[in-house]
Order: sequence, then structure tokens, then C-alpha cells
Amino acid sequence: MEEIKVFCPATIANVSCGFDVLGLALDAVGDEMIVRKVPEKGIHITKIKGQDLPLAADKNVAGVAGLALLEQSGYSGGFEIEIDKRIKPGSGIGSSAASSAGAVWAMNELLGRPFSNLELVKFAMQGEKLASDVAHADNVAPAIYGGFTLVRSYDPLDIVTIPTPPELYATVIHPQIEIKTSDSRKILKSTIPMEKGIRQWGNLGGLIAGLFQNDYDLIGRSLEDHIVEPIRSILIPGFDNIKANALKADALGGGISGSGPSIFALSKGKETAEKVAQSMRETYQKVGIPFDIHVSKINAQGVKPIV
Amino acid sequence: MEEIKVFCPATIANVSCGFDVLGLALDAVGDEMIVRKVPEKGIHITKIKGQDLPLAADKNVAGVAGLALLEQSGYSGGFEIEIDKRIKPGSGIGSSAASSAGAVWAMNELLGRPFSNLELVKFAMQGEKLASDVAHADNVAPAIYGGFTLVRSYDPLDIVTIPTPPELYATVIHPQIEIKTSDSRKILKSTIPMEKGIRQWGNLGGLIAGLFQNDYDLIGRSLEDHIVEPIRSILIPGFDNIKANALKADALGGGISGSGPSIFALSKGKETAEKVAQSMRETYQKVGIPFDIHVSKINAQGVKPIV
Repeated sequence: MEEIKVFCPATIANVSCGFDVLGLALDAVGDEMIVRKVPEKGIHITKIKGQDLPLAADKNVAGVAGLALLEQSGYSGGFEIEIDKRIKPGSGIGSSAASSAGAVWAMNELLGRPFSNLELVKFAMQGEKLASDVAHADNVAPAIYGGFTLVRSYDPLDIVTIPTPPELYATVIHPQIEIKTSDSRKILKSTIPMEKGIRQWGNLGGLIAGLFQNDYDLIGRSLEDHIVEPIRSILIPGFDNIKANALKADALGGGISGSGPSIFALSKGKETAEKVAQSMRETYQKVGIPFDIHVSKINAQGVKPIV
Repeated sequence: MEEIKVFCPATIANVSCGFDVLGLALDAVGDEMIVRKVPEKGIHITKIKGQDLPLAADKNVAGVAGLALLEQSGYSGGFEIEIDKRIKPGSGIGSSAASSAGAVWAMNELLGRPFSNLELVKFAMQGEKLASDVAHADNVAPAIYGGFTLVRSYDPLDIVTIPTPPELYATVIHPQIEIKTSDSRKILKSTIPMEKGIRQWGNLGGLIAGLFQNDYDLIGRSLEDHIVEPIRSILIPGFDNIKANALKADALGGGISGSGPSIFALSKGKETAEKVAQSMRETYQKVGIPFDIHVSKINAQGVKPIV
């Protein structure tokens, strides 16, 4: 195989009580990317559609992730990349992660899969480092593994895949305002009350158990974050109303996607997820900020070829 | 049925990263209790073997838990209780919880099971309140449900049962020193660093996933507590050596049982758990404090009839 076209999923990181550890991959929104083997060494980004992003490999997240893989591969040639950038940067649904993950996943396919998913995550994390100064894994892990992933540890990197209940859908609203990841980091406190910590790990335990057992009610009860959401949600106009109305529309629960501004809700069944989308639409039209809404099944596969 | 004899399991609460939420039931150590229906109203503790504990129902944890059940039951008679107290109070393996849980479980059987396990936990929590001023559920829940239980929330009370991997064994050493639960509470800090909180919920997520998947290595990697263990272990002579040597003897991991002084390790297979017991024995003989050691399968059933 000399060329592959792939779908690079958007992802939700910081899934409620899983702040900094739990992420999931979406199916209805993502970038598309064509990667082809070329004799010239290095990564050559030849085309980026949809966004004004640098073509220079060392300034582009897909390029940086790809170079990290190339360096370990022993492959004497290079790769050309064309990116159709459909996820808006800064939206909070893993725009940079999609490009980083897609690039290394596609290259691995073209080289005959010499690398494990864990190694691919490590390469893609280099793209994340370029994007936000932190080599975090909570978006690239679900983008590569698919479904829900837990980053249990960074040293050593330990990614745990969590099963995806078959009827679980996400609804995501992206208010078109800018929140810088670095700013939304800064407003977090460096210490938390023990009592809130206990509630958080109790809820994360419940959420993981709910995902393993397809127990949608338990998933819903566990989607509580008393630590980060109360602080960061202040930066997102209309957050409280969006969330309250999503719950009224029968969402299981929800929260801030990544570091915002996107807000997500999880629901049992597509019909409910659409109803939640409608409630978000009605709520946000009153806020007066432009927005996009996505309804998506959880993507259990991660990056995948487009045939 | 007018009379029942039950085994009331010892339990390990605060299972490592599951501080205040995760507990498990043991099989090889527990109290025995005979409960019988009598026409006289109230709870009548007629005999306590093995420990010097009050017979007055309102001063005994089994009595208080039983009275809470009686009040809700509509039953016009009462119960007689004989307790063979084999778990030493203050050992950190749920001595009071075993009595509270055993009493209400047995009464529920004799009344034809009018109450759910969740209701039984609520009654038994009244016994815990008498014992330690706090109506905590992390020992009585595994004693009643069996296996691993997660107390996701207290308000409302939400107990999540977690499956027990078939080859999982616990080794517990009880150094015969006294640590008051109230003292071991006092030395804990009321705030924790966010970064340690994130590691804790990452580990708890990994532990729950490991238990669901019978992934013993993941269970072992996740048995890390960077928050409570470093502080409380100071109160337990020889803790660091016991733990280090247990790991050398192939234990998956371990920590403080409850608020101590008991120390537990989890292992894959009975043979390894016995080897861990031997390493604990050798380590503690040098400390010079008397001790008991128990090796036990995880008790997936909880309180059970003795026939």
C-alpha cells in the first residue's frame, strides 16, 4: 500500500469526573487525511484545506508527530500528507490530536504496522506538545484506540481501554468563542479539598463500572465533577442552562469537553441525543453566540481508513 | 425459619487508591453469630464469646444495627443474638462492621427477606456510627454484598458491586498495636494536591477496569495510593518493609487495611498469597510486635449461613 485516506476522529477529553485521564472518540466529526509514501525523506505537508495552518512539518502537529514516528521507523523514504481540516482548532474536541493521531496511524499502516497503539500514542503526543506545550495523551489515546480510554499513568505511559456501551451517543455544542487551553489551566486550583477528591474517584469508579456493564443509569449518576467544572464553566457563556436543559431532555449527564468551550452530553440512544441537540440549539440561540452542534455515536474504532 | 447461624466476614476498606470508597470481603476470617426469633420485642444479646463487649443492645453495634432494622420491619417480636467474636476490635479489618452486617443480614433472612441489600447497609451503618461516630459504609457494604464494593455516593447512598477475579487472594497482617480510627483521621490533610488527585482517580479507574477484566497485572499497577498511605503508614511500625517484601514475594500490590494497623496485599493465586504471608511473617518477627496473619480468598458472597 502506497497511499491511504483516513478519518481522524474528534475526541472529548476530561470526561466529567475523569479530568485529565478519561477521553472518548467521536464518529460524526473528524478530519480527513491522505498520506502517501514518497521516496524523499521527511514529512511533506502538501495541502491543508479548511484552516490556515503551517505547512512546514516542524511547525505542524501532524508533521511533528510524523517526524517522531519516522525517526524510530528505519524507513528510508518519507511521507506526503494532505489534510482536510474539518475540526476547528480551539474548539475543545481534540483538533490537534486528530491531526497528530491520524498522521501516525496512517503512516503505521503504510509501513506494515511496525508500531503498537501505545507507541503511536507516544508519537502523537509530540504533536500535542507542539500545540499546547504539554505532551498530554487524553485526546490522542481515544483517537488512536477508539472508544473510551483511561490514561492511568504517564510514567510509564499506561493506557487502559474501556468498553463502549452500544447505545451511547454524544451531543456536542461548540460555542464559537476562544478559550486558550493555557488560560483554562491557569484558573484551576493546585490543591483540592480531600472530600471532593473522594467524591471524584468514587464517581470515576462508578463511571468505569457503568461502561463495563452497559449500565446507563449508573453512567448518568457518575457523570459528576465537583472539582473542575464549577471553575471552568464560568468561562463558557450559558453553560449552566445548556447542561440543565440537556438533563431535562433526558441526557444521562455531561460537562465541558476538553478545556472548553465545547460542552458535551451523553445519552442513551440516538433519538435522545437528537432531542438533547435540539434543547442545546434552543438554549444557545438565546445566548447570541454562533455555534455548531454535533450528534455522534461513540467511535469504538478510532482513526480508520476511508474507502 | 426461627434461628440461623451466620458467618460475618472481615473486610478491607480503603483499598489503596480507593480510599473511603472501595472495600472487599474476606473469607478466611470473620465472626460467627446465631440469631433467633423470640416473642419478646427488641434485641437481646445473650452471649458474647471472645471479646469483652457490652450486652446492652443500645451499646452494642449488632444491637444498634438490629434495632434500626426492627423499627422499619413491622415485626412484633424480637431477636436473640449470640456472638462468637473472632475479629479483634481495632484491627482495621472491619470488626464492628462484621457484627452490624451479620446481625441485620440474619434478621432479614428470618423475616423472609423484606429488605434489599442497600437497606441492610443503611441499617448496618447505624452500628458503624456507634463504633466510630461516623456512619460509614465502606466495610458494611462489602460485608453484606460480598466481593468488591464501591460506595459511589452517600447522598443518596449508591453502592456499586464490582466483580471479583477468581484467582484473587488477600494476605493480611495484623500487628497487635492500637491505632484509633479517630487518630488516623486526624493526621490526614483536608486538602490534597490536584496532581495527586488526578493520579488517584486514574489509578482507581485502572483498578476497577482490572477487576472487571480479570487483568491481574493492571490490578497490580493500579494499587497505588500517593495520598493517604504515605501519611498513615507512619503510624504502623515496619509498614514500608512489609510492603516492599510482599512485592518481592510477587504480591500484585497492597496497602493499609481500613485505618490500620492491619496491612493487606493482593495476590494472584493462593500459593503466592501464602508466599506473601511467609514474607510478612519473617519481616515482622524482626519488628518484635505480636501479630496475626490471614490468607483468604476474596469472599464473593458476603455474610452467609453456616450449615
